[in-house]
Amino acid sequence: MYELKVVTRFAAAHQLRMVGSKCENMHGHNWKIEVYISGDRLNAGGVLVDFGEIKAHLADVMKKLDHKFLNELEYIPDGKPSSENIARFVAAELQAKIDSANARVSRVAAWESDDACATYVVEQ
Amino acid sequence: MYELKVVTRFAAAHQLRMVGSKCENMHGHNWKIEVYISGDRLNAGGVLVDFGEIKAHLADVMKKLDHKFLNELEYIPDGKPSSENIARFVAAELQAKIDSANARVSRVAAWESDDACATYVVEQ
Amino acid sequence: MYELKVVTRFAAAHQLRMVGSKCENMHGHNWKIEVYISGDRLNAGGVLVDFGEIKAHLADVMKKLDHKFLNELEYIPDGKPSSENIARFVAAELQAKIDSANARVSRVAAWESDDACATYVVEQ
Repeated sequence: MYELKVVTRFAAAHQLRMVGSKCENMHGHNWKIEVYISGDRLNAGGVLVDFGEIKAHLADVMKKLDHKFLNELEYIPDGKPSSENIARFVAAELQAKIDSANARVSRVAAWESDDACATYVVEQ
Repeated sequence: MYELKVVTRFAAAHQLRMVGSKCENMHGHNWKIEVYISGDRLNAGGVLVDFGEIKAHLADVMKKLDHKFLNELEYIPDGKPSSENIARFVAAELQAKIDSANARVSRVAAWESDDACATYVVEQ
Repeated sequence: MYELKVVTRFAAAHQLRMVGSKCENMHGHNWKIEVYISGDRLNAGGVLVDFGEIKAHLADVMKKLDHKFLNELEYIPDGKPSSENIARFVAAELQAKIDSANARVSRVAAWESDDACATYVVEQ
């Protein structure tokens, strides 16, 4: 099995509703996003999917998040822009753009800082 | 499935009993520790577990390792403070502190340098 | 289960046959290689495999790739030196050198830049 990983970043504001945590204050992060695409067979070029294609699709998804106040976006799952839900959103958006029967988004990781990351693992 | 990752560090001395390896000399490392917490359902705040909670528990575990001579610690598995056993120790200690029916420690990685890491994968 | 990871690097030139991609031009990368070795039982020294042993074997494998034009190497799978096939090649070469009934190469990741990585997951 092959698994591609592509890394990108976006910056945004968010606010969580968690009793007793400083995350309740409106704040923001430079998120680092890692997307994973998995599949079993390489194409005629010897690759699973062209990295350039993944990067182009991912850049389109990032436009929906970058420099936004995430709590105002109706497309964030449950209206709760945690890193968990951001990762889940990116996975669904990217999967809808990947045009390959042999490759699927398997995981997306959202790092909200250098030491804290939430990954959504897609059910297969 | 969601998986959180939190990264921390500690510095300590250790010594291994391995025939013919320089690791037999007492030496030390700045270990980088990555802990993984997995679960299927987000809580009311839209997160698996508050990162702040994991970091607080992990800081408590690190106090048992940081700036110690690991060979002198009776709680290291088999009395052999390899990165493998350090990872296993951290996994067990952190699991005992996580107060959530829906989240469990799934893996702990212990980097003893920028190019060498041992991960303990918890049996599920 | 324990999993060791060792990181190394090599620099080389390659060229892919992909319609409409700049990867068709001869170019090169500083690849970062991450190898994963998995197993269930630690040895008498408390480790899965000595990191020094893995690093020595991996250095031998890197000699077959470093500062080469990869398209000229007959041992690259399918004659297509994509990062996917480089990862697969390293996995097979390293596995042949690991002298342990209890440890096997489980994955190899080949980063061709800081934001693009291909992993070969070995079938178990």
